Amino acid sequence: MKNRLATLVGALALSAAASAQTWIWYPGDYEIWLGNQMNNRRTERGAFFPPFWKTDSHYVVVEFSKKLDLAEPEEIFIAAEGKYNVKLDGKLQFGMPSTLKLPAGKHSLNIKVWNQSTPPTIYVKGKTVNTDKTWKVTYEDKEWIDESGKASDTSATVYMDAGCWNFDGATQLPSKFSLARKPMKAVSSTPRKEGVLYDFGKETFGYITLKEVKGKGTIHIYYGESPEEALDTEYCETLDKLLAEPGQITDLAIRNTRKLYDEYTLDNSKAFRYVYVTCDPGVTIQDVSMQYEYLPEEYRGSFKCNDEELNRIWEVGAYTMHLTTREFFIDGIKRDRWVWSGDAIQSYLMNYYLFFDNETVKRTIWLLRGKDPVTSHSNTIMDYTFYWFLSIYDYYMYSGDKDFVTQLYPRMQSMMDYVLGRTNANGMVEGMTGDWVFVDWADGYLDKKGELSFEQVLFCKSLETMALCAGLAGNTADKTKYEKLASALRSKLEPAFWNEQKQAMVHNRVQGKQSESVTRYANMFSVFFNYLNADKQQTIKHTVLQNDSILKITTPYMRFYELEALCALGEQESVMKEMKAYWGGMLKEGATSFWEKYNPEETGTRHLAMYGRPYGKSLCHAWGASPIYLLGKYYLGVKPTKPGYEEYSVTPCLGGLKWMEGTVPTPYGNIHIYMDKKEIRIKSDGGKGVLNIPTRKGMKAMTIEPGEEQVFKY
Amino acid sequence: MKNRLATLVGALALSAAASAQTWIWYPGDYEIWLGNQMNNRRTERGAFFPPFWKTDSHYVVVEFSKKLDLAEPEEIFIAAEGKYNVKLDGKLQFGMPSTLKLPAGKHSLNIKVWNQSTPPTIYVKGKTVNTDKTWKVTYEDKEWIDESGKASDTSATVYMDAGCWNFDGATQLPSKFSLARKPMKAVSSTPRKEGVLYDFGKETFGYITLKEVKGKGTIHIYYGESPEEALDTEYCETLDKLLAEPGQITDLAIRNTRKLYDEYTLDNSKAFRYVYVTCDPGVTIQDVSMQYEYLPEEYRGSFKCNDEELNRIWEVGAYTMHLTTREFFIDGIKRDRWVWSGDAIQSYLMNYYLFFDNETVKRTIWLLRGKDPVTSHSNTIMDYTFYWFLSIYDYYMYSGDKDFVTQLYPRMQSMMDYVLGRTNANGMVEGMTGDWVFVDWADGYLDKKGELSFEQVLFCKSLETMALCAGLAGNTADKTKYEKLASALRSKLEPAFWNEQKQAMVHNRVQGKQSESVTRYANMFSVFFNYLNADKQQTIKHTVLQNDSILKITTPYMRFYELEALCALGEQESVMKEMKAYWGGMLKEGATSFWEKYNPEETGTRHLAMYGRPYGKSLCHAWGASPIYLLGKYYLGVKPTKPGYEEYSVTPCLGGLKWMEGTVPTPYGNIHIYMDKKEIRIKSDGGKGVLNIPTRKGMKAMTIEPGEEQVFKY
Repeated sequence: MKNRLATLVGALALSAAASAQTWIWYPGDYEIWLGNQMNNRRTERGAFFPPFWKTDSHYVVVEFSKKLDLAEPEEIFIAAEGKYNVKLDGKLQFGMPSTLKLPAGKHSLNIKVWNQSTPPTIYVKGKTVNTDKTWKVTYEDKEWIDESGKASDTSATVYMDAGCWNFDGATQLPSKFSLARKPMKAVSSTPRKEGVLYDFGKETFGYITLKEVKGKGTIHIYYGESPEEALDTEYCETLDKLLAEPGQITDLAIRNTRKLYDEYTLDNSKAFRYVYVTCDPGVTIQDVSMQYEYLPEEYRGSFKCNDEELNRIWEVGAYTMHLTTREFFIDGIKRDRWVWSGDAIQSYLMNYYLFFDNETVKRTIWLLRGKDPVTSHSNTIMDYTFYWFLSIYDYYMYSGDKDFVTQLYPRMQSMMDYVLGRTNANGMVEGMTGDWVFVDWADGYLDKKGELSFEQVLFCKSLETMALCAGLAGNTADKTKYEKLASALRSKLEPAFWNEQKQAMVHNRVQGKQSESVTRYANMFSVFFNYLNADKQQTIKHTVLQNDSILKITTPYMRFYELEALCALGEQESVMKEMKAYWGGMLKEGATSFWEKYNPEETGTRHLAMYGRPYGKSLCHAWGASPIYLLGKYYLGVKPTKPGYEEYSVTPCLGGLKWMEGTVPTPYGNIHIYMDKKEIRIKSDGGKGVLNIPTRKGMKAMTIEPGEEQVFKY
Repeated sequence: MKNRLATLVGALALSAAASAQTWIWYPGDYEIWLGNQMNNRRTERGAFFPPFWKTDSHYVVVEFSKKLDLAEPEEIFIAAEGKYNVKLDGKLQFGMPSTLKLPAGKHSLNIKVWNQSTPPTIYVKGKTVNTDKTWKVTYEDKEWIDESGKASDTSATVYMDAGCWNFDGATQLPSKFSLARKPMKAVSSTPRKEGVLYDFGKETFGYITLKEVKGKGTIHIYYGESPEEALDTEYCETLDKLLAEPGQITDLAIRNTRKLYDEYTLDNSKAFRYVYVTCDPGVTIQDVSMQYEYLPEEYRGSFKCNDEELNRIWEVGAYTMHLTTREFFIDGIKRDRWVWSGDAIQSYLMNYYLFFDNETVKRTIWLLRGKDPVTSHSNTIMDYTFYWFLSIYDYYMYSGDKDFVTQLYPRMQSMMDYVLGRTNANGMVEGMTGDWVFVDWADGYLDKKGELSFEQVLFCKSLETMALCAGLAGNTADKTKYEKLASALRSKLEPAFWNEQKQAMVHNRVQGKQSESVTRYANMFSVFFNYLNADKQQTIKHTVLQNDSILKITTPYMRFYELEALCALGEQESVMKEMKAYWGGMLKEGATSFWEKYNPEETGTRHLAMYGRPYGKSLCHAWGASPIYLLGKYYLGVKPTKPGYEEYSVTPCLGGLKWMEGTVPTPYGNIHIYMDKKEIRIKSDGGKGVLNIPTRKGMKAMTIEPGEEQVFKY
């Protein structure tokens, strides 16, 4: 009972928060604009490096409106980013008023804003009239007047609910958003060759600060995730070049000159652990430090167990996640610094077991979708389009946020229209010119021709997601349409790809003919999508997943799904060994964050190379952090079974550990679990939970009550 | 022969000009962005007033590229608007280089620019390597690399030819473009009520300048196209309000404070002839003048005759055109200041007989189309969408500019897809919710329901235009498709709308049933589109065009087409009388530019009212200037018969005048014509001309040779 009350209070607080004033915008627009700031910060050896896919932008004219019914008159404060006008009951007010008196009764208030550079946003604060997500927005109000002055019928105008985040103060302009910073010092500095090598102790991200720059000449700053990279001035991936002159300093890459004070902090952020600084003879620098930049996040999830290596894996995974959780979930902090759909879906899943930060998930989903028209796959990659759909399914399951799905649904439709416009006569997808069929970075040949079983499996799940979301958005015609498409495709999967002789799904089919190749990808997704029956799932565990003759996976990216499939098949003990070997292997190589790719068979500086470049590999890559997800979902064993944890299951599994304990965040609060070989203790803040206890006779289901800790002996 | 050489030299000069350096951008993007600056300058009594249709914007990341083949090395100068990078043969250069050394031989040069606020543009100047319209541009190069560093196949990337205008100097930044200005003084100032009324002598446009503002208090500026409007402080359409303070002055509408010098010129331009200025008691102003703002244009067309009233009509028409020919062809300079498709098509046609300014035509066509996705008709108006298609047909006929049509064709396709997605079971268009079916401002009831004959006629011509342009763009499949659609619709027009009893096309058909109403619109368009046979054309002259019981046209907008139809039917004499009565009527009312609407039956200040507002009517409206077009095309009688005046006809007609002479500009130069009752004299700079001489036996065709003046007696 006590806990139910807490939930109720929580819900009321939420509803009160919804009516508190906040800056609002056209949904998705701020997210897309902020994403452009993010994606365009990538540099390569001092050169600006924007994405190669279409960069969308905000609607430059947006109308905000609200129907009012006031018990008494009130005065409102109005602010906007952009040139704006204010209409009360259809009458334009003079200029750009910062206050307006509203009479009692029913009124309509419209504010229209134009802004080319940053998204049109508004902020209204009154006693009862405040901007929030209940305001309506449109980019074309179609409100014309005829010759007599009569206004048009705007019933066909498409209004959306406003977008917002947490800019609740009048002066907290959305376009001025920046992440938090704090100063950090190097843990060591060592004279090397012509300069000094600074070590910040672990992988980090931020802005280099130079203290007491004197003299005239060039300063070179070479960044490295490894000392080898920082010291290799010819091949390090990122660098900066400054020109010091008496009283001023110029960043030569962006040609920006500033006055020189005691301290100079660069305008460009970089990822590094090491920094190698060299100066022309005439220049001296007293000290080099940095401003660490981060998104403030609460670590709501946790994991501890008797195995210290595993604890360290969790910690480094959490830090990797934190470094890559920024304005958006990005892939890696050194090189790309872009938002990629395939990388992001894994970040979301890890996030549900670590920060439960829905806002960053939503921002990233908006950005990845961009605007109509759709002119390519997400990030140009076919599989990444499908992951985008799947990520909405996941988000809905974890958050229960139906509003977001409804808001996004029109862009899901046009994205799916694009996909359906590129299917072959079998209704399957094949790579067309300009499509990047990615699958994975593989140490071996991956055929990308014809119908890949992997792509069809993702496509099928995407169609099922469309059907679900159409239902949520109240579009029953679409629901039926996508259900039919999904079941038609699903019924074709086994006939097309299952090979009786190999007892596995083959990699692809070219012109109707199955190839000889079997890869892990489609087989493992078929497990957690339940696209194969239980027998076949157990079969492929042996014929594919645990078969060493099948092309090995060497990215943590696909390891994520491979290990998930094995966990889903009850292989927690072997997966535990794999985790310790693979992620433990990176730790033994000195990793302070997890990598883009790791091949245990490589040694030394080969670990640093990728893309044909000696330091091309990212040593802090979000997809490297999957133990966060695996430990939460398959060892602590918590997952929602109805959207938003309205119902959930806990199926804890020690997987060879002596004891473990941890917390999984949910929309109701947290679920805390302790398990050893004798008992399971659970404390949950809400939702209808079922605990599956392993017994000699199989699983036994017990009800979890929210509130006090419950102890289950087994 | 002499002239042929001149033409050849002209063509060479053109090709040389094409390789001279100029700022370039993604085609249409600068135009759309500049259009936003234009459309968002409208104000209503001090309130900002943006359009109600979707405001598109530029692609924020654009890649420019050029394949080079250099005989010797050269150094190029590079400038860009935005953050940019430079790649030579795929290798990124450090920073944002302003010079680059290119080695001899074959190379590829790529420059990628990001700019949120203004369109990404670049400028490259070298000995042989210069930015021009031969550069390729794309908003998504889809150039990714695989794990080994190998670049992707970009063969599916859509490259366009670069857009450009006349920004040929390195410091002539496209985003800084502004029209020309010159100072003008009022012709009189008269103390009235609490202030002073300034008269600038004629309709004008620009920025008010205040001289020697002293003291502290508010200054009100009320603008009027009439003295009544300027003096009516409660109802004048535009006004400004300033706050003078010691040493500074604040524009209260835009809340911009500036230092106060001897002269203060407002930031907002306005249209007016009269300005009424009042000040708070503590404020004094020594003088009020203005900065006239205009697009420098050469008056290449001319017209003179024995009738001074007609000469004055031509002059006031030309001035009306000049005032409304700005960054774009706009409707009227006082109120809307927006770009409207139905208004613009008439401006284009007048322009071909006055300035022959292709650049402003192209800019306006780009802006009106905007970007995909299409979410409404052009300016939300169904007929305006069709005029947009028709205007491309006209532009191609007058200019012969196939490149522009090819460049624009993809956006023509998506616009027509939008229209075809809104047809009924008969393949005809009907107004759907959110569509504005405009036709005309009429002094009487115009039914907008069901299938309007007028809209189908425009739709049919639009489909014919699509077929033509598909052919020009080399898309034969589309050509066939649109030809079929056009002929299918055309064959339905007479069965659907021709009424045997009324001997005319009826106004509309609702649920398959012809209405009783006959209006002029479809009937007159069927004349110059040749959609009715010659007999029926002559019939409707009597049953409709010259029938006073049919709803009269009271806008110069539809008068344009009405008089054109009559001229096409050989009624130049009666049209001459109409022109003198109608446009001469406005002159007699004191017009110094032509109006949005003129009903000769109204008197006094009723002429100023529209839209339910006492001064709602625009007294300088582009569509008011149609005599410019009629006199050039149907009296001087010049029109292209093959695109770009490769072939043309001259069918001069005095229409009751004693003599006339004038010039019609063409891509080859000019065609000068003199005609009196005995002879016709013609001098043409190029193209294959046919002169149609009226004789007692009908028309006699003579060949016009370019070069020296030819004299034809008749």
